[in-house]
Amino acid sequence: MKRIPRGSSKPRLKKKPAILVSNDDGIDAAGIASLVKELQKIGTVTVVAPDRQQSAVGHAITMNFPLRVKKFSRNGRFFGYAVEGTPADAVKLAVKSSLLKRKPDLIVSGINHGSNTAISVIYSGTVSAATEGTILGIPSIAVSLTTFGPADFSYAAKFSRKLASLVLRNGLPKGTLLNVNIPPLKEKEIRGVLITRQGKSTWDDTFDARRDPANKEYYWLTGELKESDTGEDVDQWAVTHRYVSVTPIQYDLTNYRMMRSMSDWNIEQIR
Amino acid sequence: MKRIPRGSSKPRLKKKPAILVSNDDGIDAAGIASLVKELQKIGTVTVVAPDRQQSAVGHAITMNFPLRVKKFSRNGRFFGYAVEGTPADAVKLAVKSSLLKRKPDLIVSGINHGSNTAISVIYSGTVSAATEGTILGIPSIAVSLTTFGPADFSYAAKFSRKLASLVLRNGLPKGTLLNVNIPPLKEKEIRGVLITRQGKSTWDDTFDARRDPANKEYYWLTGELKESDTGEDVDQWAVTHRYVSVTPIQYDLTNYRMMRSMSDWNIEQIR
Repeated sequence: MKRIPRGSSKPRLKKKPAILVSNDDGIDAAGIASLVKELQKIGTVTVVAPDRQQSAVGHAITMNFPLRVKKFSRNGRFFGYAVEGTPADAVKLAVKSSLLKRKPDLIVSGINHGSNTAISVIYSGTVSAATEGTILGIPSIAVSLTTFGPADFSYAAKFSRKLASLVLRNGLPKGTLLNVNIPPLKEKEIRGVLITRQGKSTWDDTFDARRDPANKEYYWLTGELKESDTGEDVDQWAVTHRYVSVTPIQYDLTNYRMMRSMSDWNIEQIR
Repeated sequence: MKRIPRGSSKPRLKKKPAILVSNDDGIDAAGIASLVKELQKIGTVTVVAPDRQQSAVGHAITMNFPLRVKKFSRNGRFFGYAVEGTPADAVKLAVKSSLLKRKPDLIVSGINHGSNTAISVIYSGTVSAATEGTILGIPSIAVSLTTFGPADFSYAAKFSRKLASLVLRNGLPKGTLLNVNIPPLKEKEIRGVLITRQGKSTWDDTFDARRDPANKEYYWLTGELKESDTGEDVDQWAVTHRYVSVTPIQYDLTNYRMMRSMSDWNIEQIR
């Protein structure tokens, strides 16, 4: 069995692992409650999440406004810290302020209600929270349930717990996180787990031009994912075919191939 | 001379090229005005940009609110369209609504007042506008002037125009954009142009815990770039050493090496 490359952020496992949970649907969402319940079986869980829905915020952070934090209760008991900010804010604040007693061994973001495959990955607040964790040097996972309809998070939460254990054991290479998409099915209906690449499908966007009651024009974004990348190694293919999709992703965006081929551009000439 | 790979989005050049300009500092910023003035020498320029400062918004898009667009004048003349939204919103709306007469041949985002190197790339609204252009199949460039102090955009604008011509001629491979950082120097002080990779340096963040007049606690993000990646092929190295930095970046975030090594995880076992 090959070893994880050197420089990997493999956590110590002497005491019960400390797990930070965040999301982008907001701290009151059902998905985060299911996730916390499962992760509490394997670690000490702290929740620091946006106080409200933050979908499609990308990797936004708040620099020009102060961040406020409130304690949030669920069913009459303390559940976690609600941050008036983005998912990346929540994770950064959790790790860099005095909210947590010690640096987390693992960060899990989710469970998002809705798919984060293909191009959606770069718009995703769920992924962004896990990316921020990775930047901070903590192994991180983003988990999404691939339905916008009514959601049963139970299998997704159970799978997240098992994957969390595996990541706590194996670590992740520096700069790399896992983006997980889980079909909205019962355990017995799931066909397996595939290691996938991020699909290249994009959204077929349109803007609805409308008039408000004062007859002023406004636009509303609408559209659907155009499945142009139909490879069987692709995230969206996996979930459509009843597999759990696990995609290792990174935040080094360099296109190294292009970097080499650009030497032919004689770019120095335009200086 | 090697050819650009097949599938590259090389524009037709029969008529004067149509160039869409956006930014994240807002349509009233000085950087976008300098850029437009230079680009008008080589093409027909349309400006569609956020109506206000949108720094560090990452790749946020607006889905849950309507977008409004207003005509914006500068020095008494029509300058462009101001969108009440993010940089990605502005580009998406420009290309997908009826604002533009034809699909742009090129998108240039900037000139940002401030650096977008290393980890800042993933927080950057400037880069996000160009990324959105790339997703829409249009060759796109993000340009930043690497100073937060007083800014003279004249050399940066001139360089942007020359690079724009080069990209109009060469095209860019599918899914790839150029992230350009230009030191705040006069032309004769610039030592040259380097093709770079995105540096791995991150911010050393801290949160200032403060009390508001009502004695409620709030946090304010502060910190500085910790230059941990000192390779000479890195974006930040280039600009610190008086070179223009041009980094080809992509939005396929897959870590292909990790994808292969994960086959050792026996991930199927945790299903």
